[in-house]
Amino acid sequence: MPIIEMHLAAGRTTEQKRRVMVAMSQAVATALEVSPSTVRILITEHGDDEFSVGGVTLAERNAAKQNEKPQEL
Amino acid sequence: MPIIEMHLAAGRTTEQKRRVMVAMSQAVATALEVSPSTVRILITEHGDDEFSVGGVTLAERNAAKQNEKPQEL
Amino acid sequence: MPIIEMHLAAGRTTEQKRRVMVAMSQAVATALEVSPSTVRILITEHGDDEFSVGGVTLAERNAAKQNEKPQEL
Amino acid sequence: MPIIEMHLAAGRTTEQKRRVMVAMSQAVATALEVSPSTVRILITEHGDDEFSVGGVTLAERNAAKQNEKPQEL
Amino acid sequence: MPIIEMHLAAGRTTEQKRRVMVAMSQAVATALEVSPSTVRILITEHGDDEFSVGGVTLAERNAAKQNEKPQEL
Amino acid sequence: MPIIEMHLAAGRTTEQKRRVMVAMSQAVATALEVSPSTVRILITEHGDDEFSVGGVTLAERNAAKQNEKPQEL
Repeated sequence: MPIIEMHLAAGRTTEQKRRVMVAMSQAVATALEVSPSTVRILITEHGDDEFSVGGVTLAERNAAKQNEKPQEL
Repeated sequence: MPIIEMHLAAGRTTEQKRRVMVAMSQAVATALEVSPSTVRILITEHGDDEFSVGGVTLAERNAAKQNEKPQEL
Repeated sequence: MPIIEMHLAAGRTTEQKRRVMVAMSQAVATALEVSPSTVRILITEHGDDEFSVGGVTLAERNAAKQNEKPQEL
Repeated sequence: MPIIEMHLAAGRTTEQKRRVMVAMSQAVATALEVSPSTVRILITEHGDDEFSVGGVTLAERNAAKQNEKPQEL
Repeated sequence: MPIIEMHLAAGRTTEQKRRVMVAMSQAVATALEVSPSTVRILITEHGDDEFSVGGVTLAERNAAKQNEKPQEL
Repeated sequence: MPIIEMHLAAGRTTEQKRRVMVAMSQAVATALEVSPSTVRILITEHGDDEFSVGGVTLAERNAAKQNEKPQEL
């Protein structure tokens, strides 16, 4: 069954999304000893005003820390 | 209460989305013997690079099988 | 693809859950013109202290309205 | 841990989204006696053809009740 | 519409869950200028072997840090 | 940010859940080039009467195919 919803900050490329879905499918199939064909993954992207930690949005955090990688939040 | 989140491949028309929400509301209300007015449905659409089965994205699957209906995945 | 998460108040029988999943699968397949075999449904049940409307929990509402059907909330 | 997904009708401004995330983070931290920095919030917006109550979409409801505030649904 | 799913570590009391749902409903209603009666909240609890940060489960973290409050994770 | 909800059929051991969360965290961190410490995973388990494909529940499927591994569904 494994059905996986992954929430990401918007901005990854199609190739990055494909790569992470391939890697997750293999990791789940190996760890749970199921066929990769049973692993379904859904990605939902969130804009930088649609995610917050402690009430601080990703947009605010990126503005404050322009020298860090924003996706590390 | 029934609160339902439905994940769909992007591309359905407004009329298709309306029709499926009407049909689901009736089905749920009848099967659970509740008033249709208690049934809430949320649709989230996913692009063809945001859904995979076994690490193969919907985009790849559609490209490989151009003669099949893509939404059958 | 259709992948559906349904949130229900805890307490339905296995037969009620089976019946609603059959009805929803048929409704979705017909409305979207996809094969029923593509429709996946996940049910998550919530205790009566795990759902609220306007800050009033299902437990409080059921206690206040013992003559109504609680699942109508 | 608290991880919160909030589903909203599309159309709020960045400032409204920021304000509700600040208010929720404070409310959750106070009520559960945890640090605000542990509270993560994700917003997903839904178009007016992607939400229904009793099979009536938000779009239909807004069309029928043009004098009411649509976000009150 | 606001429909909110809150994921919590298992273990809060019914009163704690009630209190956080009251606080969140008020916060959301005030910040978005909607009626509290439109705010629905669903809580899903996760056992300490069902949540991880960086692959370290809540159970492992609690075992390692017995002097800290586990729910601060 | 990556926040991941994984839906599994009930019945895995604590060690199996730990192992799959470790594997997924590493896979996501490597594929997206983020620190593993930014990857949060939530597992929700579903009983065999709470998941269906085409209206056939996992319980029915397991009863029909007692010689196959039920988690392969």
